[in-house]
Amino acid sequence: MWPPGEENVRQDPLRSKAILSRLAGTLTPLGRRSFLGLGAALTSSLAFGSKPVLADPALESPPADAPWSQSIGAGVVDRPYGRPADTEASVIRRNVPWLTAGAESSVSFSPLQDLHGIITPNGLFFERHHAGRPDIDPAQHKLMIHGLVERPLILTMKDIQRFPQTTRIHFIECPANGGMEWRAAQMNSLQFRHGMISCAEWTGVRLSTLLEEVGVRKEAKWAMVEGADGAHMNRSLPLDKCLDDCLVVYAQNGEALRPEQGYPLRLVVPGWEGNVNIKWLRRIKLGDKPWHSREETSKYTDLMPDGIARGFTWLIDAKSVITFPCPEKPLDRPGHYEIRGLAWTGNGKVKRVDVSVDGGVNWQSARLHEPVLSKALTKFSLPWYWDGKPALLESRVIDETGYVQPTIAALRKQRGTNSIYHNNGIQTWQVKPDGSVFNVQLA
Amino acid sequence: MWPPGEENVRQDPLRSKAILSRLAGTLTPLGRRSFLGLGAALTSSLAFGSKPVLADPALESPPADAPWSQSIGAGVVDRPYGRPADTEASVIRRNVPWLTAGAESSVSFSPLQDLHGIITPNGLFFERHHAGRPDIDPAQHKLMIHGLVERPLILTMKDIQRFPQTTRIHFIECPANGGMEWRAAQMNSLQFRHGMISCAEWTGVRLSTLLEEVGVRKEAKWAMVEGADGAHMNRSLPLDKCLDDCLVVYAQNGEALRPEQGYPLRLVVPGWEGNVNIKWLRRIKLGDKPWHSREETSKYTDLMPDGIARGFTWLIDAKSVITFPCPEKPLDRPGHYEIRGLAWTGNGKVKRVDVSVDGGVNWQSARLHEPVLSKALTKFSLPWYWDGKPALLESRVIDETGYVQPTIAALRKQRGTNSIYHNNGIQTWQVKPDGSVFNVQLA
Repeated sequence: MWPPGEENVRQDPLRSKAILSRLAGTLTPLGRRSFLGLGAALTSSLAFGSKPVLADPALESPPADAPWSQSIGAGVVDRPYGRPADTEASVIRRNVPWLTAGAESSVSFSPLQDLHGIITPNGLFFERHHAGRPDIDPAQHKLMIHGLVERPLILTMKDIQRFPQTTRIHFIECPANGGMEWRAAQMNSLQFRHGMISCAEWTGVRLSTLLEEVGVRKEAKWAMVEGADGAHMNRSLPLDKCLDDCLVVYAQNGEALRPEQGYPLRLVVPGWEGNVNIKWLRRIKLGDKPWHSREETSKYTDLMPDGIARGFTWLIDAKSVITFPCPEKPLDRPGHYEIRGLAWTGNGKVKRVDVSVDGGVNWQSARLHEPVLSKALTKFSLPWYWDGKPALLESRVIDETGYVQPTIAALRKQRGTNSIYHNNGIQTWQVKPDGSVFNVQLA
Repeated sequence: MWPPGEENVRQDPLRSKAILSRLAGTLTPLGRRSFLGLGAALTSSLAFGSKPVLADPALESPPADAPWSQSIGAGVVDRPYGRPADTEASVIRRNVPWLTAGAESSVSFSPLQDLHGIITPNGLFFERHHAGRPDIDPAQHKLMIHGLVERPLILTMKDIQRFPQTTRIHFIECPANGGMEWRAAQMNSLQFRHGMISCAEWTGVRLSTLLEEVGVRKEAKWAMVEGADGAHMNRSLPLDKCLDDCLVVYAQNGEALRPEQGYPLRLVVPGWEGNVNIKWLRRIKLGDKPWHSREETSKYTDLMPDGIARGFTWLIDAKSVITFPCPEKPLDRPGHYEIRGLAWTGNGKVKRVDVSVDGGVNWQSARLHEPVLSKALTKFSLPWYWDGKPALLESRVIDETGYVQPTIAALRKQRGTNSIYHNNGIQTWQVKPDGSVFNVQLA
């Protein structure tokens, strides 16, 4: 790590700010004057849309009383279910029409460039459908559990909601997130390059609790989980994972699941590729071997250089990305900034995130924001003084198992360039002197 | 605590289930058969809307392929910003028309009976307005910081978003939550009795960072914080609290603040009464004494029996409530259930929650669900076998300072019955033999 002995920087933003200043070759001391760097910059700035004003200390009220401060606003519950401000209309999920045969088998990407924190609001949680979004009547929906079990059952939503409840915050990532980048950088956008990851608070019942209810027969080694959508999407899961931490959930961020997230019932397989987190869950069958369904044979496998395909590659390896700056959020001009980003790992907790501003030559540890939860997004940040020169921004996560996020070059050495899935390579953002930001790959 | 020596029950739901079974006078052993109690109950039930079916082990697919399993659903981004399922249309914020002069100075209550976990989705976060919800243009909005400062500043939203970012999960509760219950139980509803509390992930800048930027003069002891709504809502805050953990936030659960929550900028004062969490924040002025604004003199004070009014009662004392069962969610019939609820404290973290099913004669510790965060909602649960007899359900929280949630009777002894605010008394739900649930107060 570099600079040497700066490991403890992680928990001390002011200290890391001082290090940044040193890196930037300035003499800005700690504390107030380093913030003043910002204050001073403001007064000389026109790039902010509105020129900041140094107020008259004697002034008793803001310069102008805006129209909305001189009138009565809307009453409560004119929107019994709320919605974002009209001025946020551009913050939406987007898709790539040419990516798939039709929108019913496509993806919508979450606008990471406009999001903060680790919770993805339900309205912006990324989508991936194989036969579109079914609209299911929860009063009619049932979950069947059968196969190698003692007491097969068909459960209604009301049955399921009586079982002991568990709530956990977990990310879900489509393993094809960044899949177009195996050969070269293609999407000059944070939303389209990384937007197939979201994170929410899930509430439901442990799958192990339901399996205890039906009684697992000793020959059982695998579970087939199946959705109620038109694709009857299904996957095979090892019984060990089912009994470990899988959840059968009906709520997301407090409220009922959204239709596009599997309403009224979905499987959450913490830390494993999104495709196994079966939505509109209607069936769980136990057996003694995997089912080799379409989604784990012709899809969700990766062709290696030797012509053999990797299969059952469920785990989401440690990954991170800088969300500010990014192509959608360039830099206005030289000055003090905060580099911000997200890190995650299917292995458990994020242990450390290092950030480089010179394409990976030098690294320093970012501040991790609490709470750092297992198999959840973790937010990181690092103060940065941008001197207006070209920069190459990268983040690299190390998880609690010691796994270090690799470069895309290292991934290619091992897996070639035929893969579609599981690209967790380090993202490089190139910052140009005009402050614009581009998605690039280093040799 | 009771039963003696059962403190360790908290982290072991199976063990506490066994204790419940003993309490219920059954002989149900641990583990599978206690769950089977549920399975057995199901098969004899018609109260579930659909009679659970014991499936034929040989059956290869669910009994019927529903219409939505035989068709292609909607494509991605037909809702670029998502919304709940149409069948969840009853899960909305509600208000009490007779409570205030008009809807512009009223409250909307969050539907706690339909929520799970600790995150309140933005569309259901409770509202309290004093002059309605202004619709503010963020490009025009400014925050002025002046008074006893070295360098008064007027900041735009873009300026504010450049400062180092902090993200934290905190509850906000209106101190009038339950205010109608000082004299007697009135609202037979979880939503209307307790719905003025919600919890979200907030992102913004520490107020201490902004105050460092402007430079606090040594005579400064108080801050006046003011909103841009038509009421120019303002409150006085001690400088110590401002420098401790207050946040000036622009994001809620990942996305921009909702208009009814202060878009584009609000103050979050962790653990203190909702009214000081100024929405549509436009001004912070430092001074050497409090301002004694309307909202801290004629309002948000409590008349004591001796005719003196308590003022500046900012802290939200430890409080908890059972959210299932509740008046809106009665019990179907005797059998195994899970008592579920929420606990919170302005003092920091929840340390323990005890639950009684006999009106406070006997108590046992509930399971606290992770994460347990400071000044955030904490979820608790406890398995319960209901034998069909009348029951009185109560929860009692103990926080990390050792503060124990009091009974309403104890509160009345100290404060009389003239108060409107800060009723954190223990909630009693009466369960009748038919499973219906009522809001009652014990002498």
